Amino acid sequence: MWPDRRIIDLFKIEFPILLAPMAGVADADIAIAVAEGGGLPSIACAMISPEKAREQIGIVRQRVSAPVNLNFFCHQAADADPVREATWRQRLASYYHEHGLDPAMSVSVANRAPFDAAFCAIVEELKPEIVSFHFGLPEPDLLKRVKATGAIVMASATIVREAIWLEENGADIIIAQGAEAGGHRGMFLTDNIAEQPGTFALVPQVVDAVKVPVIAAGGIADARGIVAALALGAAGVQIGSGYLHCPESKVTAAHRTLLNSARSLDMVVTNVMTGRPARGFVNRVMRELGPISPIAPAFPLAGGALAPLAEKAKAQGSGDFSNMWAGQGAGLGRELPAAVLTARLAEEAQALTRRMAS
Amino acid sequence: MWPDRRIIDLFKIEFPILLAPMAGVADADIAIAVAEGGGLPSIACAMISPEKAREQIGIVRQRVSAPVNLNFFCHQAADADPVREATWRQRLASYYHEHGLDPAMSVSVANRAPFDAAFCAIVEELKPEIVSFHFGLPEPDLLKRVKATGAIVMASATIVREAIWLEENGADIIIAQGAEAGGHRGMFLTDNIAEQPGTFALVPQVVDAVKVPVIAAGGIADARGIVAALALGAAGVQIGSGYLHCPESKVTAAHRTLLNSARSLDMVVTNVMTGRPARGFVNRVMRELGPISPIAPAFPLAGGALAPLAEKAKAQGSGDFSNMWAGQGAGLGRELPAAVLTARLAEEAQALTRRMAS
Repeated sequence: MWPDRRIIDLFKIEFPILLAPMAGVADADIAIAVAEGGGLPSIACAMISPEKAREQIGIVRQRVSAPVNLNFFCHQAADADPVREATWRQRLASYYHEHGLDPAMSVSVANRAPFDAAFCAIVEELKPEIVSFHFGLPEPDLLKRVKATGAIVMASATIVREAIWLEENGADIIIAQGAEAGGHRGMFLTDNIAEQPGTFALVPQVVDAVKVPVIAAGGIADARGIVAALALGAAGVQIGSGYLHCPESKVTAAHRTLLNSARSLDMVVTNVMTGRPARGFVNRVMRELGPISPIAPAFPLAGGALAPLAEKAKAQGSGDFSNMWAGQGAGLGRELPAAVLTARLAEEAQALTRRMAS
Repeated sequence: MWPDRRIIDLFKIEFPILLAPMAGVADADIAIAVAEGGGLPSIACAMISPEKAREQIGIVRQRVSAPVNLNFFCHQAADADPVREATWRQRLASYYHEHGLDPAMSVSVANRAPFDAAFCAIVEELKPEIVSFHFGLPEPDLLKRVKATGAIVMASATIVREAIWLEENGADIIIAQGAEAGGHRGMFLTDNIAEQPGTFALVPQVVDAVKVPVIAAGGIADARGIVAALALGAAGVQIGSGYLHCPESKVTAAHRTLLNSARSLDMVVTNVMTGRPARGFVNRVMRELGPISPIAPAFPLAGGALAPLAEKAKAQGSGDFSNMWAGQGAGLGRELPAAVLTARLAEEAQALTRRMAS
């Protein structure tokens, strides 16, 4: 029933549908539901500790026998830059005053850790069937340890050049992430967001450039998108925003409100929330300081000084200073339990494929 | 053999494949070839006079009995802004010196005329079966005259809001132009290029928002893209860069060289070439002054002062100051005669559709 069974056979899943790892808004609950629906569950580890990752994967293992994808960021940790940090905090000072906060208060430095020896030990201990990376691949010795566990390694490419690099450096599967995608662009060989092609142009060119299977990501949130991605040569799809609508997602009330009217909203790429370009709903700080600002500290440091503001605003039901990531296909999503959604997407995609050929 | 026959039946063409109108690089020669191959030929009138348009359509009519699409820009003509113009010319002065030109030499004001009464008279005289507009729709009285000729009216939308507006204001068919597309974005209700979704996200949301048939454009240059666009709900596709590779296209030598290595190049959105955002291969002036510059005069005035530089550079085989428009799918194109390419794209798309369902 699927034109390309590589991902299905490799992962031993029912449908070539992957839950996009979404740090902070998707946890074991939705992962379990996607697995129950026949898709591949993911646990994003970018914003959690190794201990928390162990707990999360434990919950998934307890509930479903499906394979699990553990996802990590593998950026280079940014060096502290006191001058840039001071400039950024000065720029945010008026917001601190407005919210009754001391602009000089201490803030946590960073809440996104790159893949390291501690995380690698977790992979060796828990043996996830699949490990995926964003922002390139980890250091060769760490990658070797990951591969020695038998894990299938996936990594994101935003341009053809990155896909070729990832294949040459050990990725078993490439996630071709088009410009439509929500959250952080996985770019690592360029920092020019103007370069990133849309999913339509990226996927077939990556498929032609590498031998490994390609998963399409970006703008895919319904059955039409699944069939289109497979037509472009993808072996499967990774869906993010489409799952944010599900009751199992952990989006804030403000984020969910925006998701519900996503069709009439813009999702833009900003660097002010974390220091790296990521796509989301426009909030106040993006509107007033960005969406792209040259003074935002390097990833992930920009987020540190925003955290106390986000906390205050969130208490009032506002997302003025919070990441509310969403891709350009967010408006195509439906609020259904994630297991039901997964199975229905697969069924609808198969029906559409048959209808197109009849 | 096609899942959606609306465009085929409405236009009376064999395949739901449209030649994108491409001012300056596509004329009657390629239009005839696309018609012979079973697609819809287009003549772009943005950079030619009404008399030249009459001549071009005459050549097509003489050679093929296919329907013809006459395409017009319908921007508001920009008011002269001497201060801005002077700033721009001053910025270009060093390039003039470098090329042995007098920076104070007189230049032609604009080479892109909006649809007006003279063009409308041509439509009334020549009765093209289809008339398409970029940058919105013309004034209501002119549009009424166009529709009175029996022409089917198509217009481009880059966001869902524009598609709804176009349907409400008389467009019979919407061209959903995703961010991947080469050349000028058809945007007219926004000037924010960060807002424009990719084809993957735009097409299904436009299909859901309007009742009229939707043509997908942007990033489509091979059979995979055609099938993907139809899966997303499009009734047909418009292909631009994919046809630029054909021997019948009138691209310069410099432009063709870039097309031949398009897979490893970036196509970026710039406003420095004409004053409006358009996607193309990066040339020297885009690299050094842009790609987006706040001092570029309003469309189409920015192009005037570049023309003498483009002329000089072109004589040396260089595209340093020339528009070399291309979409992000340009690398997917093949150098085949346009008639052969059209028929082959249709055949391959049908084969892929069958293969996907088998």
